[in-house]
Amino acid sequence: MKMPISRYPVPELDRLPKDLRERILQVQEKAGFVPNVFLALAHRPDEARAFFDYHDALMLRESGLTKGEKEMIVVATSAANDCLYCVIAHGAILRIYEKAPLLADQVATNFLKADLTPRQKAMLAFAMKVSRDAGSLVEDDHERLRAHGFSDEDAWDIGAIAAFFALSNRMANLIGLRPNDEFYLMGRMKR
Amino acid sequence: MKMPISRYPVPELDRLPKDLRERILQVQEKAGFVPNVFLALAHRPDEARAFFDYHDALMLRESGLTKGEKEMIVVATSAANDCLYCVIAHGAILRIYEKAPLLADQVATNFLKADLTPRQKAMLAFAMKVSRDAGSLVEDDHERLRAHGFSDEDAWDIGAIAAFFALSNRMANLIGLRPNDEFYLMGRMKR
Amino acid sequence: MKMPISRYPVPELDRLPKDLRERILQVQEKAGFVPNVFLALAHRPDEARAFFDYHDALMLRESGLTKGEKEMIVVATSAANDCLYCVIAHGAILRIYEKAPLLADQVATNFLKADLTPRQKAMLAFAMKVSRDAGSLVEDDHERLRAHGFSDEDAWDIGAIAAFFALSNRMANLIGLRPNDEFYLMGRMKR
Amino acid sequence: MKMPISRYPVPELDRLPKDLRERILQVQEKAGFVPNVFLALAHRPDEARAFFDYHDALMLRESGLTKGEKEMIVVATSAANDCLYCVIAHGAILRIYEKAPLLADQVATNFLKADLTPRQKAMLAFAMKVSRDAGSLVEDDHERLRAHGFSDEDAWDIGAIAAFFALSNRMANLIGLRPNDEFYLMGRMKR
Amino acid sequence: MKMPISRYPVPELDRLPKDLRERILQVQEKAGFVPNVFLALAHRPDEARAFFDYHDALMLRESGLTKGEKEMIVVATSAANDCLYCVIAHGAILRIYEKAPLLADQVATNFLKADLTPRQKAMLAFAMKVSRDAGSLVEDDHERLRAHGFSDEDAWDIGAIAAFFALSNRMANLIGLRPNDEFYLMGRMKR
Amino acid sequence: MKMPISRYPVPELDRLPKDLRERILQVQEKAGFVPNVFLALAHRPDEARAFFDYHDALMLRESGLTKGEKEMIVVATSAANDCLYCVIAHGAILRIYEKAPLLADQVATNFLKADLTPRQKAMLAFAMKVSRDAGSLVEDDHERLRAHGFSDEDAWDIGAIAAFFALSNRMANLIGLRPNDEFYLMGRMKR
Repeated sequence: MKMPISRYPVPELDRLPKDLRERILQVQEKAGFVPNVFLALAHRPDEARAFFDYHDALMLRESGLTKGEKEMIVVATSAANDCLYCVIAHGAILRIYEKAPLLADQVATNFLKADLTPRQKAMLAFAMKVSRDAGSLVEDDHERLRAHGFSDEDAWDIGAIAAFFALSNRMANLIGLRPNDEFYLMGRMKR
Repeated sequence: MKMPISRYPVPELDRLPKDLRERILQVQEKAGFVPNVFLALAHRPDEARAFFDYHDALMLRESGLTKGEKEMIVVATSAANDCLYCVIAHGAILRIYEKAPLLADQVATNFLKADLTPRQKAMLAFAMKVSRDAGSLVEDDHERLRAHGFSDEDAWDIGAIAAFFALSNRMANLIGLRPNDEFYLMGRMKR
Repeated sequence: MKMPISRYPVPELDRLPKDLRERILQVQEKAGFVPNVFLALAHRPDEARAFFDYHDALMLRESGLTKGEKEMIVVATSAANDCLYCVIAHGAILRIYEKAPLLADQVATNFLKADLTPRQKAMLAFAMKVSRDAGSLVEDDHERLRAHGFSDEDAWDIGAIAAFFALSNRMANLIGLRPNDEFYLMGRMKR
Repeated sequence: MKMPISRYPVPELDRLPKDLRERILQVQEKAGFVPNVFLALAHRPDEARAFFDYHDALMLRESGLTKGEKEMIVVATSAANDCLYCVIAHGAILRIYEKAPLLADQVATNFLKADLTPRQKAMLAFAMKVSRDAGSLVEDDHERLRAHGFSDEDAWDIGAIAAFFALSNRMANLIGLRPNDEFYLMGRMKR
Repeated sequence: MKMPISRYPVPELDRLPKDLRERILQVQEKAGFVPNVFLALAHRPDEARAFFDYHDALMLRESGLTKGEKEMIVVATSAANDCLYCVIAHGAILRIYEKAPLLADQVATNFLKADLTPRQKAMLAFAMKVSRDAGSLVEDDHERLRAHGFSDEDAWDIGAIAAFFALSNRMANLIGLRPNDEFYLMGRMKR
Repeated sequence: MKMPISRYPVPELDRLPKDLRERILQVQEKAGFVPNVFLALAHRPDEARAFFDYHDALMLRESGLTKGEKEMIVVATSAANDCLYCVIAHGAILRIYEKAPLLADQVATNFLKADLTPRQKAMLAFAMKVSRDAGSLVEDDHERLRAHGFSDEDAWDIGAIAAFFALSNRMANLIGLRPNDEFYLMGRMKR
């Protein structure tokens, strides 16, 4: 029984507003296919624009975190939220950025057992607390990050990515968003 | 010991990019003061723009839910996430929209004991599941909404608001966002 | 849909045993109205007498805690137990005792973000552990209180108030006890 | 390493106020020894009086529940709260009342696997919900009791006993109350 | 309503394969009766053989833990898993090995309040973490054991016993395994 | 930072007892490599023998479940237990048995969103309850299986596999068992 792309209507690309269509065509050109999240969320263009703007503001921003480290946060917190789309799609991106074919599955299953540095595990511990119980954050949590060389702005990055994917995971689960088959294999071969 | 507005630097209004400044001045004109979330999140203008765009896309959208009902979702899920800013600020808005001075405190504490219709309680039960455990949503949850006359688009609204405030609550807790004192008393007097 | 005062019969004042009636009239004289808990619990006079005796033994007792600090414990633990009556009624008392119009809502939502001293936060952390998981209390928990100047008798006060409201919250939720409308606004105006 | 009776001072019987002393002597005459809860709580006479009055009002009251069924509620909820004193002391009483040497250990470990009637299991399911999550009680929970012939007053009994031992368990864990050795063996021999 | 020995067919001893029958007869000779786990699991002889081999490999092995300490782990983790058979049967064995009539009930209810050494409580804290959340084990957990003189092999023993009874408890709950009446009273009399 | 195969000594193959060595050589011949679990658990030969006997008794047994369905249970429950080794190794086997390159990642992340039949989802729901909270199993859970055509023996299979991997997951997390790199890619290519 193959699950659909979304339990909501998925718009066709050429029916979308021009700005969204062009944005999606750019992604398609780069990735070789259109990730389902773009079409499925475009069912509501205004929300989709804000979603992708927010994503880019966080994920493309210069930061004390590498692009791979940001994806670690996405994969670890999305797995904790049982979000199939985000684990599969961002797992692919994590493998590619880090050139580490095993890493995404490790981080998704148990980051404490993954091939990571202590600094990266401290980063993920903070992200997981934001994801699971942000209301109990105290200054000691920030102190633990500082002990690994993270700045206050890095803490914002870590927490804000965990927070954005708290939204993203819930949207994907709400609409039953199916990952594109292409993601599952991307980045798994050593070069 | 009075807590600060944010554990991060709070920019001054006249140092902000023009579009954000004008957006904030509009809010100030309408509300009579600048809600702290605007200044505190403007510490990062790109993220702030996306945040407010997203908020407006959801909260100002025509919907099968009234504006008051949308605020019920915000208050109930924000209380479950221990988010002081959102409970206080949106509690004020809920009181005003519904002209119901008692309702926000009821919904924040225990929506099952609040002065609501069975339909509104079903709406909040769905929102709470999205907020707490979206990964376990099944078609039966949607069916329960339909039994109260909610459409699939209404279900998106309910779930998306719960999802957006999953983000918002985590950001507010991450930065220790303090509600403006003004919110606490707004809408508490019967007219 | 307005919820009733109790899902059980609420006795009329002049049908109550004399001692209970006089006790309630005294409260009415002081507060200006009869808090619903008195009439609703008086459905069973023997249990009601013991309930109010227990309450007074703890809350009126001379202590290393101020009367306002005792109410902080009530509000924080009652919110954790989703008890509408206790959050609303004791929130009002907390605002009045502490002359702090914002404090009750802060403590009910997230005491870590409230305008409290570190000592008061340590007091509430101990109370929350008694409320949520008293079975795992160890001497280290008592040690943390002592580090803030609390005596062993203060620890009893903190724990016993949390324990008494563990009872009180469950009774209020069992009978669906509705707070009097008056409580919502009490103590919210600065003097 | 033998644990003490209480981490607080335990008063000697002849130093207690006369009414408490006589109350305790009566218990001693009946049981053959003084249960530790009496002396340990008498460290604070006012609270102790209210505690025992409350206990007696609930447990000695005529009811649709048998005395043994009331003790089942105590044992099941006290075990869920990891309360050594209440499980051991009330387990003894349950064995004696029900003339059932195996029953207390069954109920303390897993009431679903105990030698009970479906009606008694429904009673305990309601009590456990009051004990663990009273805030989520809804009319359906009461309906399930009614389906087994329980009246609304019986529901109050069940819930109020669970609520009183929510208090009692927390007090016992707070002070580290040690059960008398005598309780462990009482009622274990078939007659 | 007396619960049966198992919700699955319980084979008769003389219908079992010879090796299992002889194994069981040996136990019967030693214990004076056949513990229900032997007959109930023998419904599937291959699984039963592996189960008892595994049990013996762990429980009969020379170790830095005494035989009584191993049983403490069984009782504490089985109680956390609400497993009636294991709590009752291994509680009896624990009482006998330790010549401590009160100990099993203490450990089953709340090991923090039991008459144990700090070393034994550290052992049980590690076992409980393996039982409840082995995925979050870190080197600090092993370090805490070492501080009490436990070797790495002792840590394997502690963790492996907790792991084996994670299996055992689930099997017993799956089949509704009833403890033999004999276990309840064994070891309760001081000699 | 690459994690080791085990935090315990890993024996060399030619130092193992003959029966274990031959068993492992057989696996090596079939799989092309020695899965780490064999060497790591062989640190204790008696426990290893019982472990593999138990595994084979369950997983090689004729059953109303296909071999692929058994692996679904392993993957779903191991993911819930954050067990890296079991998710990766049995994920590979699941992909191969079912000739379904996407299925293991789906089941590990959220079986409700996986390409499965309703019958398979009911099987996994039962397995997850055994894994997480076997103590609360009731006849209704068995009834739900029967509604999908599962027999009582099938229910034993489902529950026993979940129970065995409750053990296996805890052992793997206790010793920090690292999956062989080979598993990550196995079965991912469509044929």
